[in-house]
Amino acid sequence: MVKKCRIGTEEVETLWEEVRELSLGTSTEVERLNSPPSPLEFLRNFVAPNKPCIISNALDHWPALSLWSSDDYLCQALGSAEVSVHLTPNGRADSLSGSLVAYAQQQNDCFRTEYSVLGSDCDTHIDWASEALGCLPEAVNLWIGNNRSEASFHKDHYENLYAVVSGEKHFLLLPPTDVHRLYIRQYPAANYSYSQDTGEFNLEFDDPIRHVPWCSVNPYPPKGREEKEHNEFPLYFNGPKPFECTVKAGEMLYLPSMWFHYVKQSPRTIAVNYWYDMQFDIKYAYFNFLQSINPIA
Amino acid sequence: MVKKCRIGTEEVETLWEEVRELSLGTSTEVERLNSPPSPLEFLRNFVAPNKPCIISNALDHWPALSLWSSDDYLCQALGSAEVSVHLTPNGRADSLSGSLVAYAQQQNDCFRTEYSVLGSDCDTHIDWASEALGCLPEAVNLWIGNNRSEASFHKDHYENLYAVVSGEKHFLLLPPTDVHRLYIRQYPAANYSYSQDTGEFNLEFDDPIRHVPWCSVNPYPPKGREEKEHNEFPLYFNGPKPFECTVKAGEMLYLPSMWFHYVKQSPRTIAVNYWYDMQFDIKYAYFNFLQSINPIA
Repeated sequence: MVKKCRIGTEEVETLWEEVRELSLGTSTEVERLNSPPSPLEFLRNFVAPNKPCIISNALDHWPALSLWSSDDYLCQALGSAEVSVHLTPNGRADSLSGSLVAYAQQQNDCFRTEYSVLGSDCDTHIDWASEALGCLPEAVNLWIGNNRSEASFHKDHYENLYAVVSGEKHFLLLPPTDVHRLYIRQYPAANYSYSQDTGEFNLEFDDPIRHVPWCSVNPYPPKGREEKEHNEFPLYFNGPKPFECTVKAGEMLYLPSMWFHYVKQSPRTIAVNYWYDMQFDIKYAYFNFLQSINPIA
Repeated sequence: MVKKCRIGTEEVETLWEEVRELSLGTSTEVERLNSPPSPLEFLRNFVAPNKPCIISNALDHWPALSLWSSDDYLCQALGSAEVSVHLTPNGRADSLSGSLVAYAQQQNDCFRTEYSVLGSDCDTHIDWASEALGCLPEAVNLWIGNNRSEASFHKDHYENLYAVVSGEKHFLLLPPTDVHRLYIRQYPAANYSYSQDTGEFNLEFDDPIRHVPWCSVNPYPPKGREEKEHNEFPLYFNGPKPFECTVKAGEMLYLPSMWFHYVKQSPRTIAVNYWYDMQFDIKYAYFNFLQSINPIA
């Protein structure tokens, strides 16, 4: 005899506060390390507690750090390589809502496939992270974008080391405990098709139609829609502010598994990220339990 | 406007199952290691995922392993030491429910204080655990008991390494996700006072009366009360069986923080346990959230 009904938001609000008070800190800043941690420190202080950090001086020995500031070098190196870009009318490669914006952001291990000619410019893996996690990266991806490329709030089922080689990436981060604040709903999957003849975009829904869960919240609503969006998504806009950080060239962000992130970047930003398999452990089970509860009155 | 009500047991039952399927395993056995793990392995495979294990050959180099099998040695070594024992009419030093049973089970760092003369017989800390956890033990306790000494279900806010030197300890273990299955209720705090004149025990409540939360479930109900207790605590008796293990002399149990444990032992069991500070991280915040919900219809 199962009695099902919604619980109040009071308990989840306590959870959002407690994870900040106990572990993450109550400011919106991300902890910074001046140099790479030892494998034990990384595992103990960041991976195990599911806590982000920014590591300075992590890529000092990468040839990419100087080489990739030159467009000539990249054009020459990639001259004969065929690469994929995501074309969108507004730069939101994965957003729900234009002019043409190209964003190289394949998430299919592209750095070790399409872009393999650049491989020797970076490390093939992050040694202290591989030792901590006990494995090599499952995928390494290259990201090339400009200030009109962005990624809406989403999470990945990977431990993520995100190295910025050129430019700056701006992240908004929310821990997995805050899942209800993003109003994840089912949306129909679609892609833009671009006609070279007309120069126009056409939004095409998958056929047959399939729905995918996606975060509804745009943290920067367009002018004139602020009040409407604040009213529609009060748990986001009235709750604790997201963690906010800028990762500069030469720095690396540890983005823990299951953390929601929204990403923008400065003009001409190039980054390489390393996805390591996450552990599907008690934290993941707790997350699924939390998500199975609907506290929104 | 907070709308509060109970949720069904369906979601918590899924949580109990999922943590076993994903991480702990669906048998009731505890993973066994043939030798001590490296600090990284211990942290990655057991502490971070909050998962117990039994380590064989972990105390091979302790003089205690041979010395403590002799009562003569212990009597001589401790001849002039003043030590504390818990006297109870039935051996349940911390139970809710009598003949005289003495159980040396102070949990106040007694091995490094009252029993310091035995200190050189054991390691002062567990080196691979100290390196993994980045600290030394907060307390080291000695346990001397017999087959009538037991500890009812409870949890500790420590990472616990439990080394059995002589005899055998039998544990029932439940992960923190299963908190609702133990029916934690408020009970008045009390102690037995023993009168040497009359040879009788008297249960004395703390004055002023104070209440402490305690697990209601006795996993081995006395004969004749089985049906009654099964009906009173169905989430325990009808849910997944607890993990069960016997830790023998020379073996060590890693009992993760926040795990509920019930402990019995064979005649003449001596153990030393090392309590390391736990991290109050996202797992702890999730646990408090789970506990704040009352799914019992």
